Amino acid sequence: MSIPVPPVPSFPPAEFTLTSVKGLSAAGVRAGIKASGNPDIGLLVSDKPMSCAGVFTQNHFAAAPVLLSKAHLVRSGGVVRAIIVNSGNANACTGAQGDKDALEMCERVARALECPVEQVLVCSTGVIGVKLPMDKVRTGIDLALAERASDVEAGRRFLAAIMTTDAYPKEACAQYAGATIAGVCKGAGMIEPNMATMLAFMATDWDLRAEQLKRALPGIAANTFNAVHVDTHTSTNDTLLLLSTRAVPPPNDWARHVEPVARRLAWLIARDGEGATKVTTIEVSGASSDEAAKAIARRVASSALVRTALFGNDPNWGRFTSQVGNAPQVRHARSLSCVLQGIEVFRGGEPTAFDRAAASKAMQAEDVKLELKLSDGPGKAIVMTSDLGYRYVQVNAEYTT
Amino acid sequence: MSIPVPPVPSFPPAEFTLTSVKGLSAAGVRAGIKASGNPDIGLLVSDKPMSCAGVFTQNHFAAAPVLLSKAHLVRSGGVVRAIIVNSGNANACTGAQGDKDALEMCERVARALECPVEQVLVCSTGVIGVKLPMDKVRTGIDLALAERASDVEAGRRFLAAIMTTDAYPKEACAQYAGATIAGVCKGAGMIEPNMATMLAFMATDWDLRAEQLKRALPGIAANTFNAVHVDTHTSTNDTLLLLSTRAVPPPNDWARHVEPVARRLAWLIARDGEGATKVTTIEVSGASSDEAAKAIARRVASSALVRTALFGNDPNWGRFTSQVGNAPQVRHARSLSCVLQGIEVFRGGEPTAFDRAAASKAMQAEDVKLELKLSDGPGKAIVMTSDLGYRYVQVNAEYTT
Repeated sequence: MSIPVPPVPSFPPAEFTLTSVKGLSAAGVRAGIKASGNPDIGLLVSDKPMSCAGVFTQNHFAAAPVLLSKAHLVRSGGVVRAIIVNSGNANACTGAQGDKDALEMCERVARALECPVEQVLVCSTGVIGVKLPMDKVRTGIDLALAERASDVEAGRRFLAAIMTTDAYPKEACAQYAGATIAGVCKGAGMIEPNMATMLAFMATDWDLRAEQLKRALPGIAANTFNAVHVDTHTSTNDTLLLLSTRAVPPPNDWARHVEPVARRLAWLIARDGEGATKVTTIEVSGASSDEAAKAIARRVASSALVRTALFGNDPNWGRFTSQVGNAPQVRHARSLSCVLQGIEVFRGGEPTAFDRAAASKAMQAEDVKLELKLSDGPGKAIVMTSDLGYRYVQVNAEYTT
Repeated sequence: MSIPVPPVPSFPPAEFTLTSVKGLSAAGVRAGIKASGNPDIGLLVSDKPMSCAGVFTQNHFAAAPVLLSKAHLVRSGGVVRAIIVNSGNANACTGAQGDKDALEMCERVARALECPVEQVLVCSTGVIGVKLPMDKVRTGIDLALAERASDVEAGRRFLAAIMTTDAYPKEACAQYAGATIAGVCKGAGMIEPNMATMLAFMATDWDLRAEQLKRALPGIAANTFNAVHVDTHTSTNDTLLLLSTRAVPPPNDWARHVEPVARRLAWLIARDGEGATKVTTIEVSGASSDEAAKAIARRVASSALVRTALFGNDPNWGRFTSQVGNAPQVRHARSLSCVLQGIEVFRGGEPTAFDRAAASKAMQAEDVKLELKLSDGPGKAIVMTSDLGYRYVQVNAEYTT
């Protein structure tokens, strides 16, 4: 069967990348882990120890590199010299050998950099349930150590080396008062065949202690990476790291300048659902609490009925509102109003007399906004989701494990 | 685009139907509510007052007929003479006029049968947000009252009149020790374009008091109708009624004989997802409690990644197990084993060396069983789900409100 493939969106590269942050060098090399021959070992190194905080998958089957990196962050007190990443193999569901292999990757980098092993973190992404080809990994690590550099091209090679099924490279940056905030990530909205692993690395040259990063990161993640609906599926390997090379004094509101970079990266992930044609941002307001708002937004975002309506540009208020009506967190459903791309389609328990053709036309956008307004309290939340079309089924049904 | 439509399954009619239950008569007529001209008013009447218990949608936007029928059951103490049903219009999100129209439907039947209005229940299914065409409804009710009969054909006409997007009529029956248990229902797995309303009517001639029915019905529903995954979507109108015409003394374990009829009806609903090619029964065992098991099973059943793998006959253990790994109810994920159609594909945190081709072949069945075994405790649960294929997207994206 011939399924039309929606055009792959392209985005201009960001002005800066990770290596634009003072003190960072990077590499991305071909180690042969991927059958395609694409780059598959990435290395990020700081001249001096940097501060680091992380957010990791909650999945019970968290992969060996996730467990090891979490342990290293604890043991090092959030002081890190390097991050070694491989793509093409997730080193997940690989038993005791997987734990050994992850440790060996860190040890090899630590030896070369002459730093304690707990100052090296490791991330893996790719197929699960298959042991790492360690001969290739070792060669790749040595090559990356030899080739690392601090120019923009080296940063872009790092980004290329962490990608798997991504349709395009994902980076974002900002500058503020002489400091740089840059980030790269990999991951596809909700559809990467196996588990849609998300890896994200953000760095700044602001002088921030690990404790400061750790306090701020959950809040930054909540409205950005954790607001991307990933098919109810957090993977075995999801990792978000925030790094500080400690070169420039930070302003008090530094986190406020990091969040837009994280939000742009998260949007790029949501947009990269195979077959996705848009990103829909669902804004719930007036819920009894922020937690209630998040639960309601997630329920709407995860509905296959809602997501197919978004794909079909169908202003189907019945599907949106009935998901709200199903949420146990809702108190006064009859006060619900529903605004789609600025058009009020539902108010006080009944549909409005809106112009369906105009609403459908307004849905044919790269960015769609669906506002769901309750009157239960001050709670609000944002979730980003991609639509569900023919290509989604093709990618996921015809992919074979 | 040309999407292959999977063959519509057909099932032989049940041996008996509702009118086989002693004391019941029925009608199904064309009132013109449906543009198609198909039957759209159904009436079920008992010679003498019967016992009745119901399970209704939890949706905050419960339709007018649902609210009224719940109130009537309370006021009548579960003593009922008739049920009036219309299809083609759900009388949901219709404001105060909707409440009036539902009441008028009950009043019209009560007047003809010379019974208190609270002894008449009403159900509606179809498009939401549109007022009922009451002229047509009145004419249809009068016609149904005039035509009602107690032969099998009258029962089948009732069934035809409650259907909406159903691909085939759904009925099931059993006989035990001189009594009949019969049921009919309408509803499609998870995909009826607007809200997949489920209406189910089950009746027995066993002599059961309303209190007995009320006590047993939630347990019967839990493993049958409430075990069908409906896209996280309970509709505005979902209604299950269990009726007793009180003619034959019941055995003590009567509920045990009702459950298989309910289970068959639920399976027929799960099988009728537009584009579905099979029903997958997900059995979770060894969870910390039955509630935990249900939550885990629902999480697996609702995953679009799992459902596309089922459509593609892909024994993708990674998708199944990582949904379990995401469930907060799981305590010891590493003990998980996963058995697909009798083939163990995952054990103790790692995939087994199973034969992928054989497992894929085994998935090409009308009934697929996926067992997920934990060792957290005695909790178990069953959920039925349908697969998600191209036709699902077509039906739901190209349907226009």
